[in-house]
Amino acid sequence: MDEQKKIMLAHGGGGRLMGDLIARMIVPKFGDGQSVQLTDSAVIDVPADKICFTTDSFVVQPLFFNGGDIGKLSVCGTVNDLAVAGAKPIALSLSLILEEGLEMAVLEKILQSIADTAKAANVDIVTGDTKVVEAGSADGVFINTSGVGALMDDVDLSFTRIKPGDAILVNGTLGDHGMTIMSQREGLKFDTPLKSDCACLGELTQMLCENCGGGAVRFMRDPTRGGLAATLNEVAKSSGVNVELTETALPVDKTVQTAADMLGFDLLNIANEGKVLAVVDAAVANKAIEAWRSHPLGENAAVIGHIMDADDSPLVELITKIGGRRIVQTPYGRELPRIC
Amino acid sequence: MDEQKKIMLAHGGGGRLMGDLIARMIVPKFGDGQSVQLTDSAVIDVPADKICFTTDSFVVQPLFFNGGDIGKLSVCGTVNDLAVAGAKPIALSLSLILEEGLEMAVLEKILQSIADTAKAANVDIVTGDTKVVEAGSADGVFINTSGVGALMDDVDLSFTRIKPGDAILVNGTLGDHGMTIMSQREGLKFDTPLKSDCACLGELTQMLCENCGGGAVRFMRDPTRGGLAATLNEVAKSSGVNVELTETALPVDKTVQTAADMLGFDLLNIANEGKVLAVVDAAVANKAIEAWRSHPLGENAAVIGHIMDADDSPLVELITKIGGRRIVQTPYGRELPRIC
Repeated sequence: MDEQKKIMLAHGGGGRLMGDLIARMIVPKFGDGQSVQLTDSAVIDVPADKICFTTDSFVVQPLFFNGGDIGKLSVCGTVNDLAVAGAKPIALSLSLILEEGLEMAVLEKILQSIADTAKAANVDIVTGDTKVVEAGSADGVFINTSGVGALMDDVDLSFTRIKPGDAILVNGTLGDHGMTIMSQREGLKFDTPLKSDCACLGELTQMLCENCGGGAVRFMRDPTRGGLAATLNEVAKSSGVNVELTETALPVDKTVQTAADMLGFDLLNIANEGKVLAVVDAAVANKAIEAWRSHPLGENAAVIGHIMDADDSPLVELITKIGGRRIVQTPYGRELPRIC
Repeated sequence: MDEQKKIMLAHGGGGRLMGDLIARMIVPKFGDGQSVQLTDSAVIDVPADKICFTTDSFVVQPLFFNGGDIGKLSVCGTVNDLAVAGAKPIALSLSLILEEGLEMAVLEKILQSIADTAKAANVDIVTGDTKVVEAGSADGVFINTSGVGALMDDVDLSFTRIKPGDAILVNGTLGDHGMTIMSQREGLKFDTPLKSDCACLGELTQMLCENCGGGAVRFMRDPTRGGLAATLNEVAKSSGVNVELTETALPVDKTVQTAADMLGFDLLNIANEGKVLAVVDAAVANKAIEAWRSHPLGENAAVIGHIMDADDSPLVELITKIGGRRIVQTPYGRELPRIC
């Protein structure tokens, strides 16, 4: 029957049909039948007296893109929020808002992607919720994941610990996620297809703290919406420092740069989904880069700038290729709807 | 300018406009400027080595209804999931999916309701996320809240602890939320307007465990979607017992019953948003009811049935007013879309 191939309103009604959906499609992917029971709420062990707690909703369009999909993104996004806060993920929640008429096959593919990504990131999905809205009241699938993590020992991350002289690192090329989505929406084709950098960054952030000593790592952030420009302006403002970026040091993929040029975007403003920006004591910068480059997600890691004393009003400046200086502002936000 | 009275796509872009929205409308309501900073992720103290973790998305339509709104509902729903798991809420996350064109005044009203409800329930909103989708891609506002709570000492809730002879309690009238929403959608008017029971149940669940001893309380659940019928069928199936309900003991509001009769609904299938169903040792049932009745949310508390031995297949039976027996089945789920 066609009905069973598509999501119906009754799948969100709290009755038998919802029970079937959960038992058939969700529990086998995420429950292990023992510790993970996927009840309305989950009891989890916390190995620390402080935990890190975060949430993100995902509305990316299209649902599937080169390098990932809304499912992978929804796991990586929340794992990364925990990772850059200096926490090891313990558990995630998964909440689905489904549009009536959604193909079951599409949902199945997204759930499998969530399960695969969570497994690779070594984090359990422990609790969840499913709602269904009428056709036309949502756009296919919206996903919320929230996450709980345990803070790593000896890590102390804060804007207030950022000091003039500190180095700014990033683990690879900029803007890959945002430009992949935009190119796919605009129907742009390139010889080398663009690919989202969507990835879980827990290994990189742990590697950084363990290799450099937690104290030398001042601050980490995953520059998603608003890109590097938004993150670094927040650093300047919140820490009361200037940020100096070196354009020639920025890791950029050539095809991504071409796409950005064609569509009129500045890659500094473009969302990343597998990048961590870190501010560290300059003394450990080279060691950090070396460590990152040994990891597949850090092959193009680079020191991209430094923290400087601020005058009256903190700002972010880019030393351009020809040696000029350009102020990098916080983007307005209009560029890229539904990038994540 | 009209623009500033409505949500624009750029409010979700991660740039200046989003920063303004968060700084102007969200932080003043939820941040205290000190411990609660509303960053991408929050560090929270946990006074236990086990925590309870839960999530819910809310898509109720209409957004405002007699007795509550989507904001109040989104706090109560998650607080209640923690409460019935035997946990005291510690912190909530708040994730908004907004439709482009949403009136700022509507958002403001919802946020205020969230803030007021959280304050009354003594729980902090500590982290959040905001996404905006194009007009037509969502229906006004969808909200996700996730919650972290600390398990109460000496409380051990589980289907496996439910035994024949145990009493089934509920703290008040059935189906008020669902029938209020349905009546409002259908334009039904009554002399006494229907009012949703939407409320946070933390005080009632704590009162129950403290007054009766945690061990005497076997199981608690808030019967939302699918109503009492869905919850009790889950009890029967998961605990391998029969459930016997006494129709004359069910607390029901007369106007709600009239509305249900007019629209052809069985109140046992209808969603509640301020009710807790508890299975307790029969020896403490009267004491529990007495305690609950001293609380404004428990004035109509009653013992509504008992747990019985099951034969081959566990079931839920209703002893009707005239002494007959009717099997109460799990609803299919088609009745009430977008009730929460």
